[in-house]
Order: sequence, then structure tokens, then C-alpha cells
Amino acid sequence: MAFKFQINNDVKFNHNEELLKKAEDNVPTLKHKNISAKRIVDIVADKNAMNGFKAVDSDKDISKLASYSFKKGEKIVLDFGNHEVGHFGIDLNSVGSPMDAPLFLHLTFAETPAEIGVDSSTYDGWLSSSWITEEYVHLDVLPTTLHMPRRYSFRYVELEVMDTSPKWGVSFSSPTLETESAVSIKDVPEVKIDDPMLRKIDQVSIKTLQDCMQEVFEDGPKRDHRLWLGDLRLQAMANYATFNNQELVKRCLYLFGGMTTEEGKISANVFTKPQSTPDDTFMYDYSLFFISVLKNYFDNFKDQTVVDDLYPIAKREIDLALKEVNSDNILQMNEDWPVFVDWSNDIDKQTSGQAILIYVMKQFVTLADLKHDPDLNTYKEIIEKLSQAAIEKMYDKNKGLFTSGPDKEINIASQSWMVLAHVLNDEENYKLMTNAIKKLFPVTGIATPYMYHHIAEALFESGHKDDGIELIKNYWGKMVDLGADTFWEAFEPEDLNFSPYGSPVINSYCHAWSCTPTYLIRKYLVK
Amino acid sequence: MAFKFQINNDVKFNHNEELLKKAEDNVPTLKHKNISAKRIVDIVADKNAMNGFKAVDSDKDISKLASYSFKKGEKIVLDFGNHEVGHFGIDLNSVGSPMDAPLFLHLTFAETPAEIGVDSSTYDGWLSSSWITEEYVHLDVLPTTLHMPRRYSFRYVELEVMDTSPKWGVSFSSPTLETESAVSIKDVPEVKIDDPMLRKIDQVSIKTLQDCMQEVFEDGPKRDHRLWLGDLRLQAMANYATFNNQELVKRCLYLFGGMTTEEGKISANVFTKPQSTPDDTFMYDYSLFFISVLKNYFDNFKDQTVVDDLYPIAKREIDLALKEVNSDNILQMNEDWPVFVDWSNDIDKQTSGQAILIYVMKQFVTLADLKHDPDLNTYKEIIEKLSQAAIEKMYDKNKGLFTSGPDKEINIASQSWMVLAHVLNDEENYKLMTNAIKKLFPVTGIATPYMYHHIAEALFESGHKDDGIELIKNYWGKMVDLGADTFWEAFEPEDLNFSPYGSPVINSYCHAWSCTPTYLIRKYLVK
Repeated sequence: MAFKFQINNDVKFNHNEELLKKAEDNVPTLKHKNISAKRIVDIVADKNAMNGFKAVDSDKDISKLASYSFKKGEKIVLDFGNHEVGHFGIDLNSVGSPMDAPLFLHLTFAETPAEIGVDSSTYDGWLSSSWITEEYVHLDVLPTTLHMPRRYSFRYVELEVMDTSPKWGVSFSSPTLETESAVSIKDVPEVKIDDPMLRKIDQVSIKTLQDCMQEVFEDGPKRDHRLWLGDLRLQAMANYATFNNQELVKRCLYLFGGMTTEEGKISANVFTKPQSTPDDTFMYDYSLFFISVLKNYFDNFKDQTVVDDLYPIAKREIDLALKEVNSDNILQMNEDWPVFVDWSNDIDKQTSGQAILIYVMKQFVTLADLKHDPDLNTYKEIIEKLSQAAIEKMYDKNKGLFTSGPDKEINIASQSWMVLAHVLNDEENYKLMTNAIKKLFPVTGIATPYMYHHIAEALFESGHKDDGIELIKNYWGKMVDLGADTFWEAFEPEDLNFSPYGSPVINSYCHAWSCTPTYLIRKYLVK
Repeated sequence: MAFKFQINNDVKFNHNEELLKKAEDNVPTLKHKNISAKRIVDIVADKNAMNGFKAVDSDKDISKLASYSFKKGEKIVLDFGNHEVGHFGIDLNSVGSPMDAPLFLHLTFAETPAEIGVDSSTYDGWLSSSWITEEYVHLDVLPTTLHMPRRYSFRYVELEVMDTSPKWGVSFSSPTLETESAVSIKDVPEVKIDDPMLRKIDQVSIKTLQDCMQEVFEDGPKRDHRLWLGDLRLQAMANYATFNNQELVKRCLYLFGGMTTEEGKISANVFTKPQSTPDDTFMYDYSLFFISVLKNYFDNFKDQTVVDDLYPIAKREIDLALKEVNSDNILQMNEDWPVFVDWSNDIDKQTSGQAILIYVMKQFVTLADLKHDPDLNTYKEIIEKLSQAAIEKMYDKNKGLFTSGPDKEINIASQSWMVLAHVLNDEENYKLMTNAIKKLFPVTGIATPYMYHHIAEALFESGHKDDGIELIKNYWGKMVDLGADTFWEAFEPEDLNFSPYGSPVINSYCHAWSCTPTYLIRKYLVK
């Protein structure tokens, strides 16, 4: 996740220290592993490669790394063999006459070859250029070991010698990457997946999730490093199917629950450094997903304490969300609390928003039931009214599809979310998605794995298993074919150069919301 | 000092561990002082200023520094009020919405305004661009205190915000400079200097020397940071007149003495990090000046042990130097062991080299006498022969000036060094410099305070006191008029934009070999 800027400096937040203490108590101890560089590569242009660049074997041999020396303008790219998150270190020495000037070194950390191949100085997008993972370092005395203090998300490192002096060059040895994650791949249960592409997609999903599981569920370890609520929902679902880590989900629930606005609204994301701070960005569906995460957490761990602690916050959020519904039981669009659904602003999101509200309220009433909430039946009646209104005002019986907004737009998001909200019965849902496949497939104009996930899940939920598999293979499988070690923040199969920010150097290539195929495969396809 | 590249990878060096241990035992404990920024300035173009830029008061008030905030592309220049050597630190905070991207900061450390005013990316000179004192830093979490790990030589710091994000800006507070030097100004004896310009020149000289006195006598703390033998000779002379620090001179003598080539030649400079290493650069006059430094050291401290330890090395150096003299008792020019005298290669250096050899041999025989060297008289005879040859072959009686080289060039370096070597008697020396003043003044084409020092000293030594004062005021005084806090590596009064490297960003503006006016003033002008 990463979202266009909202600035709401005047919003006042609660800080519930009791809940935040519980968030603090569940900071995981990160696990580390040292990895060596596997090979030396050249980054070369290739118009069929993702973003136009690929890595090929260099004529230099990694086992002889220390024997090469580099002078002004020379560079080398090291490949660690897989996507990792962690710290980079390398030994450096001078070769030739005594070192009569500092070494001036430029390091570029890259998840994919294009981040090295593309000239980052041309970046002019709306996200801060400070996210470009390049560093300039002066070293006054060699030999030394350079330990980069920041954490990076990368597979490739380019070392470019900006200058030495005519009298000496620099040599490199022992490049290492100390990985960092809250979880280990070995904790994932092995399951039998016959289809080799699905097996590979499952592995890449798990690696993506692992690299995003740090001191919170991060949306992406290259950029943002931040806990977003909608992304958390998907990560937690994938986590239950794989690592099944309890403390990290619990921690994230307490972080959101401990820092609502004074009226009770939950931020789209929170910061945890230098101290826990909610962002001043709000999205209607993201706020609601707090309930979804809480419900799934309880289903998985039966942890009554967390529900007891956070149920009042969940209920307050539902009540706030219901204020956005008009007397016809239809969700009204509000610029100050927008429905996200997908990055695309070319689709109407009203029907999706209505469906998400119903979807979440159905999860909420199971919690209300558990808590013996006297208002339980009121909420059940509201679900009924919202559902009836959706069918009456948003469903086009002739077309057998949901429409959205004043122009009665028909889009894939509306159909998918209405299926997931189970507004129709199973037979009707099957027909709805049959019509959707007929009219709206192949999917185009959707650039996020986040939306693709909901389409795929709707296919499985409505009984279109083969179409679900096909969608996964066509979308995530295409990323695998293009060399993905982890799944990307954004991918538009019809445009290999697509970037939401105008340049591949700022894209995140390991992004939490794209890790869900492991959940879908393990839930719907593995017996 | 900084000298065009010699590469002599095949030279073998001795490492006399006993002498090097004594060098190590005399590493000074550096003194520190914390200094706050004095004002906020703007760097503005001014064609009458040194290198075309000057600092003027900004409309921002340093006492309100923390109240200003800065976004992408904005910058601020802090002025610490005087040239200093040390470490920079500053507190940073974010202002506005939570910090949703790293801070990307560009820092430029400058001894003079032009190093900020001139675009450093245009630098394309022969010295390594890695000496340009700029850094790029990413900070992931604010507030924080940034402690720059490297030592810089600076008065001004420009902080340029490369990027924050549209949601927040950065504020700065508590900028500090922790100074570093082996000596304190308070240890310099106060003397009465009536002339206000000479008094100012004396102060600036002492500040220059202080900032170059670190774990060795550095040639310049901005660049190189290195111990050069010819520069050491001048620094030590200025030191005796001011700080009178013994251990640092002793340390430097042992460093050179402990690491000669196998045949006994002394390097032009040595490195001390990561371990003591002689450079593979050799200059005839610089090698000889080891004897000069040793002799002056003994005169000042009467430290017999150091002479006992280093006399054999001094003698070996003299013997090697004499091999360069032909049967006519004239020094032959040797490309592999060039005579430096001055950066300029437009002057013939043979006569200067002959004079320097005589000058140093005269110092050597006082040590030989002290050591009761049986060869004493042989050396005395050689001095006589060299002096006779100089007068016979290099002195033009008609013109009353020394010539140099096959084309019988008349230059100021030859006259000055012949005066300093006292090849002629005092009356003849007076006449020689009278002729030199008539024919060769005002001095042009000389860009180093190093050569200007020897001209000035020759004026005093030959009885031209008023001309000596005038030269000091015209040369070093002009630097003072141009705002020098410390004296510069290079200065050509007739060209304010002169740089030996093609750009002012790489020049050193606190350079040891320019600190000698305090020596000249205190030796020749203060009673």
C-alpha cells in the first residue's frame, strides 16, 4: 500500500496506553541469517524483461572477487540469489600505491535489475525520491569493513567507484547480507501442490510474506516499511495458512485499536518509529477491515482477551461507518473518508463500498454474538436492510450484474465484492460470476495484486475454481515467468513498464498485498 | 603540499620498528572544544571576492533556527564564525504530518564561501574528486541527532534538503562543531606587534598552524591530511616560535626516519593510517629537508637522543644526495628524484637545488660536529666546492644575479635560495637581493605561499627588512583582506580565481606551508 496524500493536521487522536503496552509486549524478536553473494552479474537492457532490464552472468567469477580491482567510473553488480531484507556489509581494500585520497563509493540496492538499469536521477514522481535505495559513502582509510547502517530490501547491489585516485584502485571481498524477519520459512507446513506453477507461486507468496513480516506486518520492506490496515488483513490471512505467527497479528491489532481518533475512527496506517503514531490518512474500507482482522484472528487463535479488549473499538468503528449510509440504506461517497478498493480512480466504488460494509458487518455480528451484545439484533437487521438495498438499487436483473454509481457503471470490483459479501445466495453468486467472466474478462486496467486477489477469491467463493486457478496463473504466474523472487506492489500484465509512480526505481517489488496466492491455494486447492 | 603523481610500486622500504615505536609513543592527545554556529548566511556571487563568492547575513536568525522548516530543494548555510577542524553534529526533527518517507540530506562543508557557491559536479581536475567535502545522508527516523563520522575542515556547512515528502518538512537545531587539534591557541606566547595588519597576519598564521597540527603535522586538514617533509620543515619552524610543541615534531622525525627506502632515501611524505606507510613519491629537496628539521629540532630542544637515533639516517641521505652532483660540483637534474622548489614548472630549478643542497649541508655539518663524525671535514670541503661551483658556474657577475640551467634563466627562486644558503657574504647577499628587487619584483607567476615564504625570508636574511614586511603585507595581507580565516594552499594575487586543480572546490584553504609569517614576524620583527 501507499496512498496519495491526505493532510489532516487538526485530527485529535486517543492514545490508549494499556492497549499500546500490549502492542509493545508483542514486538517480535527478529531472526537473522548471513547470506553470501552468489554471483557477479551484468545488468543488460531487454525489452521483453520486466521494466526493460535483466541480469546475466558477468565474465567475472564471484569466487575470485577479491582479485579484481576497480577505479574511477568502474562498477560491479553482486547478486545474492534471492530477494532478502536486511543489512549489507563488505570488506574493502586498496590496491596499488598507498591510498592518497578517500574512496568515494556509490551503492545501489535493487530488488530487480531495472532499479540498477534505469537512471534514478530521472525520477520525478509524486512519491518522495528519498525512497530510492542508493547511498554515497566516503571511506578515508582502507582496508575496512563497510557495514551499511540502514536496512534494505534487495537481491542485487551495485558498487560504483565514483573516485579513488590515479595511484590505486579498490578491491571488494566478503559481501554479506544479514537477513531480518520475524519468521522462518522452515515454520511453514509443507503441503502437496501437484501443479509446478502453483507450487512456485506458493513459494514466492511465502517469501513475499516473510520479507514483509518485521516488527509489524509491513506493506513493503523497500519503501514505506509501514503497517497498513487493508494490507494487514490479507497478510494475516496468508500468515494463518503458513507461518501462523500469533504475536505479530496481535501486536498490529493493538496498535490500530490503541490509537483511534477521538471520535473512534481508525487510521489507514500507523507509524511505529520513533514512537507509535497513527497516520492522518483515513480510508473507509481500511478502517472497517479492523473488524475483519479481529474476527479472523479470533477464528484462528480463539484468543478471547483480545476480543474483550478491542470489541468496543470495533463497535464504535461500525457505528461511525453506518453514519455514512443514507435513509435508503445506501452508502454515500465521502471525499474525506474515501473508499479505496483499488488504486484506480477510473472505476466507480460505491457498490464495492456497500459490499465491503456488508462483508465486514457479517464478521462483526459473530463478534457481537460472542460478546452477547444487546444490540446484536439491531446490527443483523441493518445487514438485512443494506443487502436488500444493494439488490434493489444496485443489481441489474437483466444483465445479471451489479452496477455502481449514478452512471450505473459495471465493473469487476463490484461483482467480486458482492460475491465476497454473500449478498446473493450461492447459486446466484455462481451465476453472477459467470456473467462477470463473460462480460468483464480478461481483466484489464487493474494494476494491483490487491484487487486481483479479491477477484480470484470471488471466483473460488462462487464455485469457479478453474477460473480462479487460471487467474492466479495468468497474473501471479506471469510475474514468476518474468523472474519475480517476491510478488510486486503493482503489475499490469498488458504493460511491463507500468509504474504507479512514473519510474520503476521507486516501485516496491516485494509487497505484502500480493502474497495471497498461498492463502488461496492452501484454502481452496489443497485438501 | 600535494604533488603530481609518481608511481614507484617496486621501491622497497625499511621499517625500523624501534624508531616507529618512538613515533607511536609521541602521538599527541588531541584537544577538543565545542563551538556553536554563529549565524545563518547566504552565499552570493561577487566578482571581487576570492573565487567569486562571499557570505552575507541571511534574513534568518540563528537564535530562531529551530523554528524554520525546510522542504525539498530548500537549503540553509550555517557559519561557525572561524575556520575549524573537527566533527559536525546537528539535531533534526520533522514538522507537519508523520514522517512518511526518509529524509534525504546533502551536506557541504566549506572553508570558504566559494566551495558552496561553485557547483562541485563540474570539477574535472587531476586531484581525486573524492576530496570534495560533500555527503549524502538518508535518515529513516526523526527526531535524531546526526553525528557525521568523518572529520572536516570548515567554517560553513550547507544543509540542502534533497527530499522529505509533501506531508512534512525538516527542522534543524543545536548545530555543533567539536574541534580537534594537538595544540591550544592559549599556549602561544603573546608578543607586541604594533602594526595592526601584521598582528592580524600573525593571528591567522597561528590559526592555520593550529588547524594543521593533528596526529601529525598535516599539510592541510581539508585534503590529504598528510605529513609532507618540506611542509613539516616550515611548520616546525613556525611551531617553535608559537606553540613550541616538542612531541609532534619528534613523532614526525621518527616517522620519516623509520621508513626510508632500502638504499636510505626518504619519502616526500608518509601515511599514518591504517598503519605507518611511506609514500612512493620522492623529491630531492624534500628528502634533504629531513636534516633541516632534525637540526632545527635539536637547536630548539637540545634533545641529544633524537640526534643519536636519526643521525645515521641523515648522513645516508646526504651521501645519496651527493651522488646527484657531477664532477664539476654541480647538481644534475634527475626526473626520478625531482627538485620541487615550487609547483611551477615554468622555472628552472637547478640553481635552487644547488643552493638547497648547500643550505642543508651547512645544517648537517653542525650535527656531524656534534656527533664527532670523522668525516666532518670531508663534508665541509664538499660545501666549499659546491659553493665555489655555484659562484663560478651560476653567478652572472655583470647582472649581479644567479642564473639557472642551460638557458641561464634568471628567476626569483634561485636568488632567494642562494641568499638562504649564504653562498655569498652578507654584503654580497644584500646587493644580490637589491638586484633581485630591481629586476624581479613585483613577483608574478608564483602561486604558493611556500615559495613566497622563501622570498620573504631571503629579504630578511639579506637585510631588506622593509621589503620583507611589504611582501608579507602584499601577499598574506591580501588574503586577510579577502577574508582569509586561515592561509591558503595557493594564492596568486593577480588572479583571484587561480586554482592548481582547475576548481576552487578542491583547493585547501588552510594549508601548513602558508603559516610562516608568524615565524618571520617573531624572528625578524619582534624584539
